[in-house]
Amino acid sequence: MNLGDQWAAQHAALDWQFKALPAIGEPVALDAVGAHGWSILREDVMLPAAVLRTEALHHNSRWMRRFTELAGVRLAPHGKTTMSPALFDLQLADGAWGITAATPAHVRIYRQHGVRRILLANQLIGRQGVAYVAAEMARDPDFDFYCLVDSIAAVDALDAALVACQPGRPMQLLVELGITGGRSGARDDATAIAVARAVSASPRLSLRGVEAFEGILQGQGVAGEPGMRNVLDRMVVVAAACRAENLFDGVPILSAGGSSFFDVVTKTLSAAEPLSCEVVLRSGCYLVHDSGYYADLVERLIARSPEAAELGEGLRPALEVWAYVHSRPERGRVIAGLGRRDISDDTRMPKPLLYARPGDAQPSSLGPGHATMRLDDQHAYLDVPEDSPLQVGDLIAFGISHPCTTFDRWPALYLVDEARAIIGAIRTFF
Amino acid sequence: MNLGDQWAAQHAALDWQFKALPAIGEPVALDAVGAHGWSILREDVMLPAAVLRTEALHHNSRWMRRFTELAGVRLAPHGKTTMSPALFDLQLADGAWGITAATPAHVRIYRQHGVRRILLANQLIGRQGVAYVAAEMARDPDFDFYCLVDSIAAVDALDAALVACQPGRPMQLLVELGITGGRSGARDDATAIAVARAVSASPRLSLRGVEAFEGILQGQGVAGEPGMRNVLDRMVVVAAACRAENLFDGVPILSAGGSSFFDVVTKTLSAAEPLSCEVVLRSGCYLVHDSGYYADLVERLIARSPEAAELGEGLRPALEVWAYVHSRPERGRVIAGLGRRDISDDTRMPKPLLYARPGDAQPSSLGPGHATMRLDDQHAYLDVPEDSPLQVGDLIAFGISHPCTTFDRWPALYLVDEARAIIGAIRTFF
Repeated sequence: MNLGDQWAAQHAALDWQFKALPAIGEPVALDAVGAHGWSILREDVMLPAAVLRTEALHHNSRWMRRFTELAGVRLAPHGKTTMSPALFDLQLADGAWGITAATPAHVRIYRQHGVRRILLANQLIGRQGVAYVAAEMARDPDFDFYCLVDSIAAVDALDAALVACQPGRPMQLLVELGITGGRSGARDDATAIAVARAVSASPRLSLRGVEAFEGILQGQGVAGEPGMRNVLDRMVVVAAACRAENLFDGVPILSAGGSSFFDVVTKTLSAAEPLSCEVVLRSGCYLVHDSGYYADLVERLIARSPEAAELGEGLRPALEVWAYVHSRPERGRVIAGLGRRDISDDTRMPKPLLYARPGDAQPSSLGPGHATMRLDDQHAYLDVPEDSPLQVGDLIAFGISHPCTTFDRWPALYLVDEARAIIGAIRTFF
Repeated sequence: MNLGDQWAAQHAALDWQFKALPAIGEPVALDAVGAHGWSILREDVMLPAAVLRTEALHHNSRWMRRFTELAGVRLAPHGKTTMSPALFDLQLADGAWGITAATPAHVRIYRQHGVRRILLANQLIGRQGVAYVAAEMARDPDFDFYCLVDSIAAVDALDAALVACQPGRPMQLLVELGITGGRSGARDDATAIAVARAVSASPRLSLRGVEAFEGILQGQGVAGEPGMRNVLDRMVVVAAACRAENLFDGVPILSAGGSSFFDVVTKTLSAAEPLSCEVVLRSGCYLVHDSGYYADLVERLIARSPEAAELGEGLRPALEVWAYVHSRPERGRVIAGLGRRDISDDTRMPKPLLYARPGDAQPSSLGPGHATMRLDDQHAYLDVPEDSPLQVGDLIAFGISHPCTTFDRWPALYLVDEARAIIGAIRTFF
């Protein structure tokens, strides 16, 4: 790891390139942001601005630490949600086993920030991606890297590439299981076991476990649960078959777990305990949570899971995007100054939660009947009650649904306290 | 303008923060990218990668230059589409009157790159936004700035803020007209004229024209056209009323024109010629165009408009995103390594257009039956014919629909020739 680069990235200044920087002034070093005493409610920064409520972040991080400790599983939170090394540090400090990545470019960003153990929850495909990982393995004997494979074709391609790249030790692979009609992953156990045999047969590859991503079924709600349980059961069957053929190197890893079924994943895969596997969850959204899609899914999870219920208060929404009321051209319609370039709309529309008039010391709740009906690139269309207090120039806080697709709109986010005073900032790397 | 900053931004190096950088090596200065001889088809950069076909870009820029010359209108292309100063330079070189912005943060980015005339096609709301524009007006007497206003409340707020900010000359405003159920803009002519009077009455404000954004109706197809013609007719009526009351300073501006109706806008507003207005279009998507939504809309435009038909070949799609085949877990299903973090899906799904096997000198067309069915954050699900040639490790080029929401996924894009050799790169600022 290049410490110069690491320092530069962590301490990067915010300048005119950052859309929520205050209007006037010099670039501000990231670690000096908190010292300026800026406040969202005092209009000290340009809006729209994305903010992370730090109390909620820390609560959520501790909540997941306690859940995984109670459940006896490991956590490699999906870093793609936030792509923010400062938040990875928080997750690692709260006991995370490693950080999950989605692409070779993610791996490169994580490595620049010193992440030692990375699970690439994806196939490793393409000349540059393989070359990067192999070079990094060769350079740093402590780099503990895992990725997925779901076909003989991919095993052969990776094996051939590693002949040329020479990482100096076998690359650790998990066989991926998938669901008919779904994403990657072997559709039947026989294919998965054939892939496992091919991995085990190569001196350049090491079979370390079995993987699935049950989260693709979460959109189906309760109807998706049987399919989800089925793929988890198949993981146990395939792992047992690989164990019987002695294909694994070391203690096998069973890895699954999006952000909505991790209780069921934990329970099902722990039933494979006679295999002495390590169970690795990969939830990414728990840290930031949301005010919509995942809020409902995790509420269902807590109702289902005695371990989660035991933890008391559930996850809190940590992310808000603040924007101005630009216009109220009809009594029942407000146009606000944020759009799909500022906030996610891929699962549900942003939720108007709070408002403040310039000068207010605290935000107030918006009553019922305020809802986002449409997002353009840079505008939101709100339906509001005829007697809504909103007027031109007011500030609105929007709750989000699906943090991943809000984070990637922001090269930096402000850290705030409950009065929305800005106490810091973090960078993201998309 | 701080020339040091300008230089730094234009000449910024691409480093590990950029997801499509080659695996190994030092940061590469933006203006040195072309000298490396990289090629998409030779897998010289990490994928996914977004590329701009330079021949198509130049063709489209010339096409719009000729259209606006034939039609006798001015063009302030919407810079929010690309947020790329290198492309603004191309548009200005091809005769653009100015660049349109959507937010005060856009204005700041444009100003850092030396854009002299900016039309903020939005209300200017909030302490920081007003402060930035006013300070920039005070600093540079050549800065020619325009923005919109649609309510007395907004006029009063802006007027009060300018008392404190002291830009040194009146701020130039266009009254915005809107459509019931639509975005910002006065819903009736009486309100618009009252707003115009309030602007004209303030020594800190200058009424310069009338504006509408007819593009919000484009999603309704032909059914939206009567509403669109109606709002354009209203612009002429309101401008005539303001002229009759002598509310305008200078030659009034009539500005409208998204990327799909600019022919009708031109024809209708030019009928206001007895007013001696300047007509300013704001189309943003023409330069890059697409392979979906706007392709169909502009085809309809060309069928409708003799001026456009006279220009010969229409607009070409300039933007592609390249990604790998990760898996073909069923004969009819391909999983590719790009997702909604890499390409837009807000109007239509990405279109698989071309493929290449590593080593191919030229890409080949994908036959019929290849279609994107779903995007996750980092994966695409394709339906493919049983006899599709695609296999793990192949490269696919996806055509896009709606350039704005693909550009904002990319801090930089490669410039390519028709063989997809990389001849340069441009930065974007989101």
